[in-house]
Amino acid sequence: MAKKRNIIVGQSGGPTAVINSSLAGVYKTAKERGFHKVYGMLHGVQGFLDEQYVDLSTQIHSDIDIELLKRTPSAFLGSCRYKLPEIHENPEIYQKLFEIMEKLNIEAFIYIGGNDSMDTIKKLSDYAIIKGHTQKFLGVPKTIDNDLALTDHTPGFGSAAKYIAASTKEVIRDALGLNYKKESITVIEIMGRNAGWLTGATALARTEECEGPDAIYLPEVVFDIEKFLKNTRELLKKKNSVVIAVSEGIKIADGRYVCELSGGSDYVDAFGHKQLQGTAAYLANFLGAEIGCKTRSIEFSTLQRSASHMASRVDVDEAFMVGGAAVKAADEGDSGKMVVIDRLSDDPYQSNAGIYDVHRIANHEKLVPRSWVNKDGDYVTDEFINYIEPLIHGDYQPFMVNGLPQHLVLKRKQK
Amino acid sequence: MAKKRNIIVGQSGGPTAVINSSLAGVYKTAKERGFHKVYGMLHGVQGFLDEQYVDLSTQIHSDIDIELLKRTPSAFLGSCRYKLPEIHENPEIYQKLFEIMEKLNIEAFIYIGGNDSMDTIKKLSDYAIIKGHTQKFLGVPKTIDNDLALTDHTPGFGSAAKYIAASTKEVIRDALGLNYKKESITVIEIMGRNAGWLTGATALARTEECEGPDAIYLPEVVFDIEKFLKNTRELLKKKNSVVIAVSEGIKIADGRYVCELSGGSDYVDAFGHKQLQGTAAYLANFLGAEIGCKTRSIEFSTLQRSASHMASRVDVDEAFMVGGAAVKAADEGDSGKMVVIDRLSDDPYQSNAGIYDVHRIANHEKLVPRSWVNKDGDYVTDEFINYIEPLIHGDYQPFMVNGLPQHLVLKRKQK
Repeated sequence: MAKKRNIIVGQSGGPTAVINSSLAGVYKTAKERGFHKVYGMLHGVQGFLDEQYVDLSTQIHSDIDIELLKRTPSAFLGSCRYKLPEIHENPEIYQKLFEIMEKLNIEAFIYIGGNDSMDTIKKLSDYAIIKGHTQKFLGVPKTIDNDLALTDHTPGFGSAAKYIAASTKEVIRDALGLNYKKESITVIEIMGRNAGWLTGATALARTEECEGPDAIYLPEVVFDIEKFLKNTRELLKKKNSVVIAVSEGIKIADGRYVCELSGGSDYVDAFGHKQLQGTAAYLANFLGAEIGCKTRSIEFSTLQRSASHMASRVDVDEAFMVGGAAVKAADEGDSGKMVVIDRLSDDPYQSNAGIYDVHRIANHEKLVPRSWVNKDGDYVTDEFINYIEPLIHGDYQPFMVNGLPQHLVLKRKQK
Repeated sequence: MAKKRNIIVGQSGGPTAVINSSLAGVYKTAKERGFHKVYGMLHGVQGFLDEQYVDLSTQIHSDIDIELLKRTPSAFLGSCRYKLPEIHENPEIYQKLFEIMEKLNIEAFIYIGGNDSMDTIKKLSDYAIIKGHTQKFLGVPKTIDNDLALTDHTPGFGSAAKYIAASTKEVIRDALGLNYKKESITVIEIMGRNAGWLTGATALARTEECEGPDAIYLPEVVFDIEKFLKNTRELLKKKNSVVIAVSEGIKIADGRYVCELSGGSDYVDAFGHKQLQGTAAYLANFLGAEIGCKTRSIEFSTLQRSASHMASRVDVDEAFMVGGAAVKAADEGDSGKMVVIDRLSDDPYQSNAGIYDVHRIANHEKLVPRSWVNKDGDYVTDEFINYIEPLIHGDYQPFMVNGLPQHLVLKRKQK
């Protein structure tokens, strides 16, 4: 058998609580399968173009470091939001990337990311085929939004869902305590621009000792503000403390985001996505003015994607598994593919790693089926709940040092 | 020894993650000391005036229920924000309260709460002395704000501080991941209208692997927005990702809250309602406009007082201890007093329960001493950190059921 060369791994797009568990899976499996060096590109392809990378053996010194990495939120290597141009538009960028790969003696290139990152894998593997390069390109799915096609769900989603459900329970408990002889409405805003998977996860807060949120509004259903007001008034007839979950991405019939109605932020990121904040604040103010009771808005904000202390064991383990599976696939000669999670059974929950051609996956967005939202468009169905419920099970206890969760952090200069 | 009569306990004011641990301490100690029945007033004195109460033995059936109660956030019995009138203003209310107590054969009245609640204890014990009633009135401190005088710190503060510090670490990690070749500013807003104890707790995020927040602004120091802008620009020269913690209660020199400054025409919504945004949102928008980089605001909101899943063991245990100590004091004949926490040593941290006359405590607000904030007014000192650091140590693992923390919940109708 020929001596193995080197492998490089990068992270891209928005962070998750378990994106580093996939990195740990890549590292451990690459070492076990005899790759010589395991490089990490800093800030994804964008940093790699500037030859920003580290030898991961200078960062990970022991099995406890691997365990710490699994418990560390956000991209350990740094991330980027960088979309490669089409090959014909800018072949020089591709030439440069492959020159750097040749220089580093790279045999396999693993990219952990979402839709945009799978587009990177597709383009690089296409370019390699066109030009006769032998490097293998494999994608590892990652996104809290769960909007990637062909995989049963994405690593990062289960932990975000667990944090959201646990925090929703705590918010409901808190809101209930202070409402004697008066009414209050709490509006919780959840991430998910187009896909309502995370907003729907608030339904998991409905347990034997908690009623869960009273209404849930997903971006897949057109938001009708008059119907919303009417429904909230109905809820207040039945209970004093009403808690409503909304996606940051809900839109009214003319296509405008609800958060745009208040003249919110105009910030647009590198992928052209508008920054959405303020949906809950807008709706809480609206309800307060219309109904005249106390209202409060709560945004879980970046905590929902970075709360490793509340990560799901299923999620951490699956993130680790797909990282390792990508290395295995590359080592066995696959390229231009993404590892996916196949669900084998619901109860007991079982899954394993599958693999798909990235041309079938890239740039397709998986939304919540309309049939998994009730007729009125204000709650998710049992099918929805049964689908996500197994994904929040089990825990990885954080490594607590002086009372706080410890993380593994890259040694590098900041500026 | 005469046969013991009954005892009643209530909860008042804003909830905390450990207010129910004090309730558990009251219940357990009352049972152990031979009180006949332990009643819980629903929604504090306000509900008690409507004869809303439960026999706690119908709610707590086992030791595991007591452990669950210690892990349940927000007021189990319901809370209220109700200030008793002065005795001479409305003696009828006092008559009514004592009639209900006589009817229920109450020997001791325990009230878990903050400044306003200690005022209730003071007035009731004064009234009892004036009128020759024999009931004992004892206060148990509770507030995340840590603004009660004479106690070293308040139960509820340590857990809020721990949640804030842990979440700040996660927010810093998250913000760092995505800032290659660009700058970003995150402004975190923390509760505490007048007292900056919780905002200062973000400094605990400065650990061996985390730089902590880059600046901290407490309400005890006048907020100078030009100096704030200048300081933030300086920070951006040194690093790409700047994270700033501010109290919701910071005020500019003319006495206005920073969050009031956003009342301008920019924030009038489609319905013509003036939108009063938060402090962090205002400052993030301000910095974004002045500096031109990406900014984000994050409010920890009610999660900081309800995240029992991240409670401090020191805090849960001390909350339990002061609940029990209040019962013991009442049983031994004390009245008109509040139990306090005395710190015996810093390292190893040790504390015990002391007791103070509630006339010395009620309605005094304990602020962060100016000497515990640095000269520039943008960070806390080592003395501050050494004071709060022991209070976040240790954990109570939540009881996880189907992937989520379980709570003990009162069986009652909602409306």
